[in-house]
Amino acid sequence: MNLNECTPLPVSARTTIRRLPELANHDRAMLYRILDEAYVCHIAFVADQDTHCIPTAHWRKDDFLYIHGSNGSRMLKALAAGAQVGVAITLLDGLVLAKSAFSHSMNYRSAVIYGRFEIVEGSAGKLAAMDILMDKIAEGRKDEARRGNAKEINATSVLRISLAEAAVKVSASLPSDKEEDRDLDVWTGVLPLKATRIAPIHAESQRNIAEPAYVTNWAE
Amino acid sequence: MNLNECTPLPVSARTTIRRLPELANHDRAMLYRILDEAYVCHIAFVADQDTHCIPTAHWRKDDFLYIHGSNGSRMLKALAAGAQVGVAITLLDGLVLAKSAFSHSMNYRSAVIYGRFEIVEGSAGKLAAMDILMDKIAEGRKDEARRGNAKEINATSVLRISLAEAAVKVSASLPSDKEEDRDLDVWTGVLPLKATRIAPIHAESQRNIAEPAYVTNWAE
Repeated sequence: MNLNECTPLPVSARTTIRRLPELANHDRAMLYRILDEAYVCHIAFVADQDTHCIPTAHWRKDDFLYIHGSNGSRMLKALAAGAQVGVAITLLDGLVLAKSAFSHSMNYRSAVIYGRFEIVEGSAGKLAAMDILMDKIAEGRKDEARRGNAKEINATSVLRISLAEAAVKVSASLPSDKEEDRDLDVWTGVLPLKATRIAPIHAESQRNIAEPAYVTNWAE
Repeated sequence: MNLNECTPLPVSARTTIRRLPELANHDRAMLYRILDEAYVCHIAFVADQDTHCIPTAHWRKDDFLYIHGSNGSRMLKALAAGAQVGVAITLLDGLVLAKSAFSHSMNYRSAVIYGRFEIVEGSAGKLAAMDILMDKIAEGRKDEARRGNAKEINATSVLRISLAEAAVKVSASLPSDKEEDRDLDVWTGVLPLKATRIAPIHAESQRNIAEPAYVTNWAE
């Protein structure tokens, strides 16, 4: 099947949103946007009888979410062995203040992916995947920084998981108050939050290295 | 035992940090700060044979992390039934750009808590816990917004988990390059990120309601 961002997300038993189903979003473009905007996902997996929740950097290419790490990592080993996972990516956009305590809520965009990771095999495949991460961090940097050598590539695992089973939930609204609370003299509205790019920190020894555009233009 | 923020965090098999152990932080004050600064945690749990990773709002009082939700929530039911969990709280502080692709990293502050949630019983106990959440959202608002009534309180579960088994990892550094890469003409430094409070959005019908200080002072 030829997927693109206009292909709606399918729904499985696991990705059926049961709490506040009206917030479910089946727009694949929204899924892509959440994954591309966030730098860190949280991965739930079971290893050695324990349920773990571990944050890690992620990136996306087409309908796969990628992660990487040391071959020796407990998480990477468990995932490479085929553990079933839940992967969550959450962007918090604001606090929603309503007339009553129990009507307070949050605005957010979130995605949860179910499935199993697969190993990205071969040096060329790993390097191609890592290039996409570098482009996400700073466009063009993959052509400036020293590329991974054989030793580094061999010590690193790159894994990916299909986005075939993903649930997206988006809350972006003003407070919703019960009819009987509407006349209360209580301020209501949204206190927004935004992940902001602030002034770069230069490592000490920049000598005469030209500042790349992604550094100059980083701060908002 | 009388814990305070000067009592170092104990270490268990599950909270021993194996990847980059030099980033482990045993400072309880740091754990508190991470939990208090973040609004959302991610909870890993197993229910119906599936491993889930679900984001939810959290707050802290002393050595417990609290969450709440509808009695009907699958997650709340599984946690109330005693599922073993991993709870992760992550604050991303920046992207760390090194001379070589494989030395790139991120600055972050993160905590992972292991254990099981317990139910906060009784209306008074639930209300007292929810008041702390309201104070976290906006100091003083618990005395302005309408408090939960019996029906709302009964429909809501409040759970808490001890911080007895928590691992904290903090990365806050400039890039670290291999000796052989130091002379490469590649810009290095940190591209920082910060969760920023931006201008409040007022719900339409504020009539003549005075704007609370936490709204006036919200934006940075």
